[in-house]
Amino acid sequence: MKIAVLPGDGIGTEIVAEAVKVLDALNLPFKMESALVGGAAYDAHGHPLPPATLKLAKDSDAILFGAVGDWKYDKLDRPLRPEQAILGLRKELGLFANFRPAICYEQLVGASSLKPELIAGLDILIIRELTGDIYFGQPRGRRIATDGHFPGAEEAFDTMRYARPEIERIAHVAFQAARKRNKKVTSVDKANVLETFQFWKDVVTEVHTEYPDVELQHMYVDNAAMQLVKAPKAFDVVVTGNMFGDILSDEASMLTGSIGMLPSASLNSKGQGLYEPSHGSAPDIAGKGIANPLATILSAAMMLRFSLNQEASAQRIEAAVQKVLAQGLRTVDIYSEGTTKVSTREMGDAVVAAL
Amino acid sequence: MKIAVLPGDGIGTEIVAEAVKVLDALNLPFKMESALVGGAAYDAHGHPLPPATLKLAKDSDAILFGAVGDWKYDKLDRPLRPEQAILGLRKELGLFANFRPAICYEQLVGASSLKPELIAGLDILIIRELTGDIYFGQPRGRRIATDGHFPGAEEAFDTMRYARPEIERIAHVAFQAARKRNKKVTSVDKANVLETFQFWKDVVTEVHTEYPDVELQHMYVDNAAMQLVKAPKAFDVVVTGNMFGDILSDEASMLTGSIGMLPSASLNSKGQGLYEPSHGSAPDIAGKGIANPLATILSAAMMLRFSLNQEASAQRIEAAVQKVLAQGLRTVDIYSEGTTKVSTREMGDAVVAAL
Ligand SMILES: CC(C)[C@H](C(=O)O)[C@@H](O)C(=O)O
Ligand SMILES: CC(C)[C@H](C(=O)O)[C@@H](O)C(=O)O
Repeated sequence: MKIAVLPGDGIGTEIVAEAVKVLDALNLPFKMESALVGGAAYDAHGHPLPPATLKLAKDSDAILFGAVGDWKYDKLDRPLRPEQAILGLRKELGLFANFRPAICYEQLVGASSLKPELIAGLDILIIRELTGDIYFGQPRGRRIATDGHFPGAEEAFDTMRYARPEIERIAHVAFQAARKRNKKVTSVDKANVLETFQFWKDVVTEVHTEYPDVELQHMYVDNAAMQLVKAPKAFDVVVTGNMFGDILSDEASMLTGSIGMLPSASLNSKGQGLYEPSHGSAPDIAGKGIANPLATILSAAMMLRFSLNQEASAQRIEAAVQKVLAQGLRTVDIYSEGTTKVSTREMGDAVVAAL
Repeated sequence: MKIAVLPGDGIGTEIVAEAVKVLDALNLPFKMESALVGGAAYDAHGHPLPPATLKLAKDSDAILFGAVGDWKYDKLDRPLRPEQAILGLRKELGLFANFRPAICYEQLVGASSLKPELIAGLDILIIRELTGDIYFGQPRGRRIATDGHFPGAEEAFDTMRYARPEIERIAHVAFQAARKRNKKVTSVDKANVLETFQFWKDVVTEVHTEYPDVELQHMYVDNAAMQLVKAPKAFDVVVTGNMFGDILSDEASMLTGSIGMLPSASLNSKGQGLYEPSHGSAPDIAGKGIANPLATILSAAMMLRFSLNQEASAQRIEAAVQKVLAQGLRTVDIYSEGTTKVSTREMGDAVVAAL
């Protein structure tokens, strides 16, 4: 078993180092191999996803990913920007199923923008389709408009599209995930406006006939953005497309108030997966040793569970994280009065000690 | 001056009746003429936007709109569904500039999901482009895929597109609105993924050179969905496209906890406008006389301000609404202990009395 370790930019290197420390402590029989990705890879090799990095990723059972991006790359042409690395990995490895849990840890309820009673005990799972939709749809580009409101004017365009098998497979993933949870799926669409999402709704409804034990609810994306604020605990599994999922999964993460705690997994049909924290590269605090490594450590736990078939070890990590929280250890992003402020490294060490 | 009154479906008729009552009480020199729209128009004439209704709307200086939609029309073909009426009016009248204020009324802070300190005093303005983007972009439809991940499979697609003049005019609207407020515009895009929104960002940046007194910030839509939850008061004017604006404006409304209070305006370049509450037709409470008419009454105030050049009367209405809130009158959606529960009609009467 091989894990590709891609720390990336900003706080990526610091937080991944702690996750690797935790994995090492488990003494499991797998190899880890590191490579540059994102801005770091651009600086060294002129491309955010160099061939060697892509090859390593493809040849591995799982990828432990940090984060990519820094303002200093903002002026580069789009294909060279750090975030192309993550889009490229998703596409090249076919990582179509993105799991984004939004969980509110008991000890961190106070960090949320929401009133405690609305958020305490939150445990929802957003499943975002990750290789289709307007993210990758062709054609796209700039041109002179020949129709529309301003024929003759310069315009830019993108294509939203979903094929039946793409919707079917993500719907199966969602219904199967719901079976292991509270048996409720909310499929988010915009069927009242978009052809793509009328089709989405139709296909999800068809797939649902194979899962009579799971409840299916359809919700428009604008309403979903509202209901997440109003009553987040009313959701169990949310399934949606790439673009709506990008927006709603970030909204849901932020509702918890502790995005520094939230892992994510992106899987393909072979069980290969990319595991990364839900937060970004935070260049403003990079190198200061204060970033929260727990989302990355919990991503490593998801990796053990989903791609490496090591459920027991996954649970050991998750229990250790619960323990350090119970001990009152906090990085600055989740610090509150009466708790103990620790550095990135101290947090990693504490998790290892708690294993 | 002529106002087209289009109550629509669900609670639409009840809430519009109260707004008309308030307008009548002002004794201003304009005519009001009513017509059916949405499901009500479909039932009577077989189409949600009958020619006579469209003609009335076009011939008027302003449209006072209630709400459209009811589950019972869900099975109709898309072109006949109630929401096509509102899309049709936007398109036919060229109502490209949608103003969606998200204001938290002092007396209603407790109704929000958010902690009081995050939401008290909130006053942001979301400006949503309303006639372009993937809402109206051609081509769209269903077909057999010839490329993509699953050539040969059935697929559905839509086209996101924006032409330069469409972006320019909404950017001007946003910068001019910001000048009358706190001089800060946040332009929301997804330039890291979409050609359309890289172009959006470029054009907004160009237009900004004409407004050196206004601060311009660019933000990705996923981040905007998060920042609205984390620190909504950090925004002043938010400008974005039709699709992202649909999601973010609803999210922002719900943050206030009192969507029953929020008006909206949709304007074209001639100053004609459609004015409607931010909430929907709420068929579940229709006919019960309990809906909150204040968002519609405040929409009538916006109408007086933007389309009918009656600023003083607009302010009279707004002051009257403040007064009834101060008197402790509440419809059920904003009711809390220690206040007085009133019906739709009683609330309208109270506003008239307070004028
Ligand atoms: C960096 C960006 C391209 C990416 C996305 O939009 O998918 C990010 O926001 C995410 O959600 O992983
Ligand atoms: C009813 C629907 C088509 C409409 C939209 O998506 O624009 C509504 O959600 C709105 O925001 O006015």
